[in-house]
This record gives sequence, C-alpha cells and structure tokens, in this order.
Amino acid sequence: MSTCLVAQSGGPTAVINASLAGVIRANQLNPLYDRVWGGIHGIEGVLDDRLYDLTNLPGRELDLLKQTPSSALGTCRYKLKRDDEADFRRLANVMDAHDIETMFYIGGNDSMDTVDALAEWARTNAPGKRFVGIPKTVDNDLVPVDHCPGFPSAAKVACQITHATRLDYDAYTRPEVFVLEVMGRDAGWLAASCCLTGDVDLLVLPEVDFDRDAFLAAVQQKFDETGSCYIVTSEGAHYADGTYLSAGDAANDGFSHAVLGGAASTLKQMIIDAGIVPRGVVQDLSRAARSSNFAQSLVDVNEAYDLGMSAHMRSADPAFTGAVVGIRRSEEAAAAGRYEAEVFAGPANEFANYVKRFPAAWILPNYQGIAPEAVAYFQPLIEGEPKLIMEGGIPATITPFNLR
Amino acid sequence: MSTCLVAQSGGPTAVINASLAGVIRANQLNPLYDRVWGGIHGIEGVLDDRLYDLTNLPGRELDLLKQTPSSALGTCRYKLKRDDEADFRRLANVMDAHDIETMFYIGGNDSMDTVDALAEWARTNAPGKRFVGIPKTVDNDLVPVDHCPGFPSAAKVACQITHATRLDYDAYTRPEVFVLEVMGRDAGWLAASCCLTGDVDLLVLPEVDFDRDAFLAAVQQKFDETGSCYIVTSEGAHYADGTYLSAGDAANDGFSHAVLGGAASTLKQMIIDAGIVPRGVVQDLSRAARSSNFAQSLVDVNEAYDLGMSAHMRSADPAFTGAVVGIRRSEEAAAAGRYEAEVFAGPANEFANYVKRFPAAWILPNYQGIAPEAVAYFQPLIEGEPKLIMEGGIPATITPFNLR
Repeated sequence: MSTCLVAQSGGPTAVINASLAGVIRANQLNPLYDRVWGGIHGIEGVLDDRLYDLTNLPGRELDLLKQTPSSALGTCRYKLKRDDEADFRRLANVMDAHDIETMFYIGGNDSMDTVDALAEWARTNAPGKRFVGIPKTVDNDLVPVDHCPGFPSAAKVACQITHATRLDYDAYTRPEVFVLEVMGRDAGWLAASCCLTGDVDLLVLPEVDFDRDAFLAAVQQKFDETGSCYIVTSEGAHYADGTYLSAGDAANDGFSHAVLGGAASTLKQMIIDAGIVPRGVVQDLSRAARSSNFAQSLVDVNEAYDLGMSAHMRSADPAFTGAVVGIRRSEEAAAAGRYEAEVFAGPANEFANYVKRFPAAWILPNYQGIAPEAVAYFQPLIEGEPKLIMEGGIPATITPFNLR
Repeated sequence: MSTCLVAQSGGPTAVINASLAGVIRANQLNPLYDRVWGGIHGIEGVLDDRLYDLTNLPGRELDLLKQTPSSALGTCRYKLKRDDEADFRRLANVMDAHDIETMFYIGGNDSMDTVDALAEWARTNAPGKRFVGIPKTVDNDLVPVDHCPGFPSAAKVACQITHATRLDYDAYTRPEVFVLEVMGRDAGWLAASCCLTGDVDLLVLPEVDFDRDAFLAAVQQKFDETGSCYIVTSEGAHYADGTYLSAGDAANDGFSHAVLGGAASTLKQMIIDAGIVPRGVVQDLSRAARSSNFAQSLVDVNEAYDLGMSAHMRSADPAFTGAVVGIRRSEEAAAAGRYEAEVFAGPANEFANYVKRFPAAWILPNYQGIAPEAVAYFQPLIEGEPKLIMEGGIPATITPFNLR
C-alpha cells in the first residue's frame, strides 16, 4: 500500500485549486495510490502531521474546487532550508507514518526549490520517496515555462478592471491623472498585461529603472496631446539604486522590512507636485487580482487542472522525482495562428530560484507600453470563460478543509 | 417636429448606460420624438451645444451599450444653481435650437434636484419644455425608492471580491488583519452589502459614530476567538465629531478639501499600533466596484433599462415633468418569497437633496455586521448574470461618442 500527498504553498491564485482537483481526479481515474492526502498549510502543516483525506472527493466537490480561488488547503511562507536535516527527517517520518510515496507540491519558485532539495536529499536518505512540483504564480516569473498557471486569470481580472476604470476615468472632463497598481515585485508581467485592452497610456515596470524626469515628461506629453493620462505601475517599480517607489509608504508603516504597495500613490503625488494636474485617482488591485474566480480564464483553469493530472500520471514512473510539470506553447500551432499548450516535465532546479523578467525587447521606450509581440503572447491566455456554478449571486466555492 | 435629449451626470455605474439604451430603444419602438439627442458630459456639454444623434443606434450597439460600464455620454459634477437664470436661459436656447421638448437626466440626488429646478423654472419661463429624471447611484441613498440602479451591480462586485479575498486571507496562518474599503461617504449600503457572503467579521459604517475603544475591543475579541479578523469599512467612516477616519491621509494629500479613501489604512494602523497583530492587508475597491461590467447584476441591468424605457414612455403625457421614475419592491411578491420590481414615478423634489442612510435597525451593535432583514433586502438584488458579449477575453464595450 502506498499513498500520495498534495500541498500548496506561496501566494494563492484563482486556479491553484484546479491543479489540486487534477491530482485528485487523476487518482480516481487510475488509482496509482491508495489514498490522496491533502497537507494543510503547506509544508508547515505537513510537518505537524495535519493531513486530510481527499481520495474520494465527489465530482460535484471537484467541480467546485476548480472554481474556488485562493488555496483550499491553506498556504505557508515557510521555506525548508537546504541544510535543515532535522526538517527533512521530520517530513520523512510523517511520510513513513502514512505510507506516502509521492509528495506533490503546488507553488512558485521557492516551492520548486523545496522539491529539488527534498528529492536530492531523499535519493540517499529516504530512497523510494519522491517529490514532484506543480507550478503556480500570478507573477509569471518561472524560467522554463511559457507561462505559469494563475497568471492568465490574474491578467484577465486586471484587464477587465483596467478597461472598466479607464471608461470611468474617461467619463470626466476635469484634469486628473489615474494610476492603477498591480502586484509584481521583481517582474512586471501582470502590469504589462494591463496594456492588452489598449487603455493604458503609460506603463511603469520593475524591469526598467525609474527615471523621474523622463516619466514626468511623458506624463506632461500625454496631457498635452489628449488631456488625460492613465498609468499602470507594478508594485515593485524602483529607482536605479533599487529604492522602491513605494519606499516612503513602507517607512511609514512601522515595519523595518519593505512592505510594497504604494507605488501608485507615489506616482500620483509626484505628478501633482510637478504641477501637471491638481488631482489624481489611485486604484490598487492588490489581492483582488490574484485570487478572483469571477474572471477565471478558461485557458488557465484547464491548464492548471491538466498540470495536476499530468503530475499524477507521470508519477507512475518510479524515477519521476525532483521534477516539475509545466506549460510550453506549441510553436507549430502559433505559426498557424492558433494557441495550443503542451505539457512537459523538467528538473526542478531549472524552475527554482530564477526570476523570468518581462523581456526587455517587449518594452517600449519612455513608458509607452508593450510591443506587439507581447500582445500576441498575452492575448490567447485570457480568452474564454468557464461556465461557473453560481450561488446567491456569486461563484459558488468550497472550503471543505475548515481552515478558519 | 420635436426631439428629446438624454444626458448623464454624477459618478458612473455599471448600468447607467442601460438606462440610456432604454430611452433610445423606447423611442425606436414608439417614436414619440423625431430625434433622440445625447448630451455630452452632462449639463456642461449640453450648455455648450455638444449633442450627438442617438436616434437610430443599431440593435447590436444598444446591446453593447447595456453592458458598457461608466457613462458613455460622459459625466460632470456641474450643478445648476437654483437661481442661475442665465444658465437656465442658455439651456432653453439650446433646446429651442434643436426642438428639444423633453430632457431626460440620468443621475443621483443632485441631478434630481436639477430636474426639479428646471421643471419649476420652465413652467413659467419656458412652457412646453419638460424635464424627467432617471435615478442612478452606487451609493443607493435616494429616499423614495427601494434601491437605485447601479447599486446592485456594485454590491455584486463587492460581494465577489469580499468572498475571494476572504478565502485568500484564510489561506494564511500568520497573525494579520484584513481591511476592505468600499465607496460610501454618507451612507453605508455598499459596505453593508459585503456582509452578504458571511465572510465579514466586523463592519464599520458612516451611520455609526466610530468608537476607537469599542472597535479595538471587538477586533481583539475576534482574534481571541478565531485567530483572524476580516473587516469592511465605508470610505466615509467617521468619529462622533465628524472627522473622517481617512482625515490623516487627506491632510497629506495637498488638498484643502477632504479627499476620502484611506479609512482602511487608518484602521489597519490603529490595530497594529494597539498591538493586536503585527501586520495587516488593505484592499481598497475604490472605482473597481462602481463601474465594473464583468459582474453586472441581471436584476440591475434589466431594471436600469426598464427605467429608461418607462421614463420615455411616460413622457407621452405632456404633463409629465419635474418627475422621476423609480423602483419599488412588490410587497405582495416579497410576502410570497419572491422578488419583483415595480416601476413608479414621483415628483423630483422627493428624490433630491435627501440621503437615505442604511437603517439603524439593520445594524448589529459592536460592528458585528447586518441583521437578517438586511440580508433579505440585499440578496435578490445581486442575483443573476446577463449573458455578456465577450471580445478578446473581456466584456465587449462601446464608446461611440469619442469622449477621449
């Protein structure tokens, strides 16, 4: 008898639970494992032996799980250190106690590093135990994939709110700047995706060191030409010396570490102080963009589910460990004007600890937005909507694991 | 030959254009007027003779108009003063120049006051000219109606984001407070509606003078009981002396007048300073809630459209002026457990210059949320979704009037 374990880590997304549903469903279609355990609150809960039996989750609940945002199993920011033999040993003991052969870890860069470290350690210290990664991140910053599950839905929400707030902004005649802020500390994928609707005048990314004078000149020019200026900024926008635009706010926050969020306020105030316009509006999407299921991308939810399925199915091979599944874009289909995703698997160390930034070649100079190649990249990702089960006017969700 | 004029005023909503579509469509079904003019940027543009012929807008464009958020004709904050004979005369001249017999004005309290003032003035000074109001406001604060078009869709967006961000918040184990801020300066309807999903622990409304000690005690109690606390606040939350919670932020904003927005940040910092938890997350829905068409309420879009139709149809009566159409809830249907809206018309002065606050009897003490009566009031308003026409992954919109 052997079982498997699934856990989630890092920031939630709108489709991370679809990957979880994929693992559970794959095992129902082909029971490679006698049980599928859910680990509560990532590696933290697993180390505390907090497991939940997901093996026979009914179809209706799996459907709801696919459309439930956030991390249904709970998440953690706890990172196993590569040299923390004690934690590794504790984890192996928990796995032994429940006959867990394979652990599936759904997460971002750090979690893929954990998968790599655990697999490496297990090869000599716990042979037969296997560790498989399933990527997710709204930051879209994993290197060897075309894109990361979770990002397309975040981009779809961001695009919808960008377009709606642009129309709202355009309804007024008064001189006013509008600044939208979205998540993205080191990579500006989400901010860049907001340009997809043609509504963004200026784009501020972490990939480009912020130049106050050049930026203000671009703002002035937009107002001169059109009487308006709609700006999108990444939370991680920063000066050449690494100082975040939001640093002023963070300092006021009573924390010694930098709390991002506030770049938009800084830009608004900078524009007002420069005398370009007397007022401005700030909209910070913050968490509303990353785990909102009312605008799930169909492409995204299907891919996230497929990655969960694929990870489970590939684990039939006893040598499948220290590996991560991912999405590649079919170049053949793209050449024919279609979008098609291919699921592949690669070594976890290729997924871990690198940040894939928004390509410099796709960034127009002077904060003018994104190149046509970027539009072609983004567009198919946000297409299509799943048929959501609604309840009381909002998408129905399921939280069977009593995290609260 | 006579024509009519439609204009929009005040803050945009997700369905204000559905009312516009209703007026246009009604005239296509029964051409009471030879032309339907759209006034650009409310009364401001009308006074400048900026009119746009909407008479024969094709059906496809009307469908798109119904799902286009914000104010397609543009809006203004310009308020005609009751004693401003010159402006009244200018407006009458514009109306004469285009044979405009009836002006339909879609707006909130102020616009209904404008309708009242114009109708009163016209009775002696411009006989035959008529002024009809069609209400809208996400604030939901008009007195003689059950609710205002625009509010249900804003509530639906707010409920969806409340539920999604609550799940996101619950995924974490760390001690952290979450504070969501929504629009509502004098009335807390939108904030109160967030309680509909059962996700809100504490609710801060402008209807209740803020008591710092009582609030912090309630926060502490929630953390003691459950280890978490999800708070919703109206932007207009204030102390007994009228000072807004967001006043600190406003003072930093370089304006002499109070700029709202910031109540959530103030609450978060207050909770951190009190030592209850070391950190917090703020989500300000701001404009994303008021004009987001991706979560239009079906009830709302249908009612807004019907009010536009009804205003036009009732204007067949030459005595129909200084009047506003509105929604009443059928008590008979409600008694039978169903929701049904009845369209009525009343004198504009009953709609103007009063603020309907969220009822004291529906507010639970100690920031504990809303009474069951309030849930029963809100629930039917957010039910149902229109079948949206999608384009490129977002709801298609139309802006035929070149406001930019």
